Amino acid sequence: MVVGGDAAGMSAASQARRRRRSPADLSIVAFERGRFTSYSACGIPYWVGGLVDDRDDLVAREPAVFRDEFAIDVRTRHEVVGIDLDRREVVAVALDEGRREVREPFDQLVYAAGAVPRQPRWAREGVHGVFGVQTLDDGDALHAWLLRDPAPRHAVVVGGGYIGVEMAEAMINRGLTVTLVERGPQPMSTVDPDMGAMVADALRSLGIDVRTGAAVKGLERRDGTVTAVVTDAGTVPADVVVLGLGVRPNTALAAAAGLPLGPTGGIRVDLRMRVVGVDGVWAVGDCVECVHRVSGQPVHIALGTHANKQGRVAGINIGGGYATFPGVIGTAVTRVCDLEVARTGLLSREADAAGYAFVTATVESTNRAGYFPGADPMTVKLLAERGTGRLLGAQIVGRSEAAKRIDALAVALWNGMTVEDMVGLDLGYAPPYAPVWDPVLIAARKAVDALGVG
Amino acid sequence: MVVGGDAAGMSAASQARRRRRSPADLSIVAFERGRFTSYSACGIPYWVGGLVDDRDDLVAREPAVFRDEFAIDVRTRHEVVGIDLDRREVVAVALDEGRREVREPFDQLVYAAGAVPRQPRWAREGVHGVFGVQTLDDGDALHAWLLRDPAPRHAVVVGGGYIGVEMAEAMINRGLTVTLVERGPQPMSTVDPDMGAMVADALRSLGIDVRTGAAVKGLERRDGTVTAVVTDAGTVPADVVVLGLGVRPNTALAAAAGLPLGPTGGIRVDLRMRVVGVDGVWAVGDCVECVHRVSGQPVHIALGTHANKQGRVAGINIGGGYATFPGVIGTAVTRVCDLEVARTGLLSREADAAGYAFVTATVESTNRAGYFPGADPMTVKLLAERGTGRLLGAQIVGRSEAAKRIDALAVALWNGMTVEDMVGLDLGYAPPYAPVWDPVLIAARKAVDALGVG
Repeated sequence: MVVGGDAAGMSAASQARRRRRSPADLSIVAFERGRFTSYSACGIPYWVGGLVDDRDDLVAREPAVFRDEFAIDVRTRHEVVGIDLDRREVVAVALDEGRREVREPFDQLVYAAGAVPRQPRWAREGVHGVFGVQTLDDGDALHAWLLRDPAPRHAVVVGGGYIGVEMAEAMINRGLTVTLVERGPQPMSTVDPDMGAMVADALRSLGIDVRTGAAVKGLERRDGTVTAVVTDAGTVPADVVVLGLGVRPNTALAAAAGLPLGPTGGIRVDLRMRVVGVDGVWAVGDCVECVHRVSGQPVHIALGTHANKQGRVAGINIGGGYATFPGVIGTAVTRVCDLEVARTGLLSREADAAGYAFVTATVESTNRAGYFPGADPMTVKLLAERGTGRLLGAQIVGRSEAAKRIDALAVALWNGMTVEDMVGLDLGYAPPYAPVWDPVLIAARKAVDALGVG
Repeated sequence: MVVGGDAAGMSAASQARRRRRSPADLSIVAFERGRFTSYSACGIPYWVGGLVDDRDDLVAREPAVFRDEFAIDVRTRHEVVGIDLDRREVVAVALDEGRREVREPFDQLVYAAGAVPRQPRWAREGVHGVFGVQTLDDGDALHAWLLRDPAPRHAVVVGGGYIGVEMAEAMINRGLTVTLVERGPQPMSTVDPDMGAMVADALRSLGIDVRTGAAVKGLERRDGTVTAVVTDAGTVPADVVVLGLGVRPNTALAAAAGLPLGPTGGIRVDLRMRVVGVDGVWAVGDCVECVHRVSGQPVHIALGTHANKQGRVAGINIGGGYATFPGVIGTAVTRVCDLEVARTGLLSREADAAGYAFVTATVESTNRAGYFPGADPMTVKLLAERGTGRLLGAQIVGRSEAAKRIDALAVALWNGMTVEDMVGLDLGYAPPYAPVWDPVLIAARKAVDALGVG
């Protein structure tokens, strides 16, 4: 029994089926509130922005494929309204059948209800023209809204995290005026302020009106539709408002059923994705919390790649195999305008909060040999623990072939490497791909200097 | 005292100077046979091919910079002809002063004589129009030859390694007809045959006549200039012949002086780049051998990135600091036509030779989410040890944003990760940069399956 038919839930279902092929041995039912299964929520901004033509391209597998090829009984437009752990039953309602109630028994339950956008009070008042972009149904509604006649002309994006900046860019690509309202001192607070400043510049160079240190007070409306966003830094006309305030784990049902929630609000699971202390119940994807391998603290990071991995792990275990999800280190990459932005491990404020004493090293280099055509600038920042020299975090901002360089740093961090050891790493070198000292290695050298070792 | 003024030697010199700033404390003399110092030999094919306009762009630091800013007495066009370890003297001749002899005493000697192209007998007969591309002087001579009037029209490249395929592409970009003659079953023997076949196809699609399994027997000439290359698979007209048969350590002087050579023909050094058993003598760069961290065997890999690192290590140590060169894992990336080709660790034949039992896993994926504009195909192949599951090697062929993905695999390999552990790695995910399962992770999953674990 799977609650939630997106990446995490359906990965679990298909992995379990892969190991237990016979529906007579293992019958699998999956309830999904929306119309879509197994889609790329991360792709929504690119579809809305017009970079991806067809919404259906975002769908990895249609419900029919799960039914026909995996013998998984996927029921879309079914909202789960209750989980009865004592009777081992899930209660759902069929949304297109007058909320007809369905009760399904289970031996094993996979809870994969995802996340929901953070909504301040003004966003919960039912004003038309206000959209989250967490589900493909959300994206679909926003997309349809943008095609109205007359077309919306003024967009306000509230919140400058990944989704916020991606949506701001999508809106400007569609020809709307765009204001990005961010409560903090800068957008892209997912990197350190010095790195985020480059992102703010790039957004402004696109013509996006970036208002930082500004809080939204409420909405103005006419006939129930938004006309402006009222902030403490002025009122901004708006025909469409997009929420980019982040997400929180969707745990209402889980909490009601008595599943344990952790300090982040996510469901507590063990390494095999079993809900802690509850037999036969698994939780995967954006609704769970997991351990950050650098801080040792529980974190909630909603990201498709974790969801897929966790789903796979649960599915293998349910299917009788053995797999674990080892936690995360906070790696993330995003494209903002013509910038590539990447991070892994802890930011400076996170390292402070975790109690680390550390040095930082920031270097300017290029993605290719400086003399090679197409060489673009690239900034790499490293955090290394004082004393041990262990890498704690890394951030990259560049223009091309920059973001995925974070992977080498992520693997180094994953393995607990010191920046001194990193200087010796045998990374790929050829003029079309790197200077003779890769930017990552130059940064490691500078961090070694900052530590005063060597 | 530094013998050889390219990357390795000059890195050593500048690092030593950085720590011992006063010439009165440490005087540094560097002899360089050629006219250039500290240049990118790896960039020569791109300059010859016209991608890089200016030869001087390849020079990182001019001799005058070393003299003026680093107080390093660089003497170009000085060929070292003898090293007298007993008298602690280097004997050099000034090539532009009638071979005037110069004797210089030393306390510390850095031997950084680089490598020389492998030259079969027919290439050593002094026929005009035959070129290696190991030094910038070599590249300069080839470049001048191509500008002769009438211009050469037919090029033959002998040897299909990195330099060979890069030079074949450079020649075709200049409008010459190009024949690539390779003794082995395929060009690009620096990857497994299945991966190399993609490179051969790409070369042929550019119009390069790739002749494999063909050995060169000799040259035809007129007035001392090459007119054709005679192979056992026919005679090929040639106005210019480029050697791409690899290089060997340039150790004639070292051997004469009694420095120890290892089984690869490279100078034997310890972790700090001290020549084994010889006090006060260091060797760095393409003339040394170092340990392959996967096979445990000594290897000779001539690559600028190693040379720079080794030079830095020697310089720090000479300057009174402490640094080690930890060995290599054989990472290499190259661009061949519109392909990016990368490897790290052991190839299949190398893993066999090292005595490993292993599985391979090859997957086809894309560099970006499949639905994202510009998604290009990418093939990833992994080798993992049977039993332990430890990653032994990786190869990538793709069209864009592919080659540098080898770095994450290189760092995983460096740290002895198993493919099972790698499945959990937190790599960067966003639709412009990767599918939700990065190709590297998909390959790791397939390798886990091949091992029969999990």
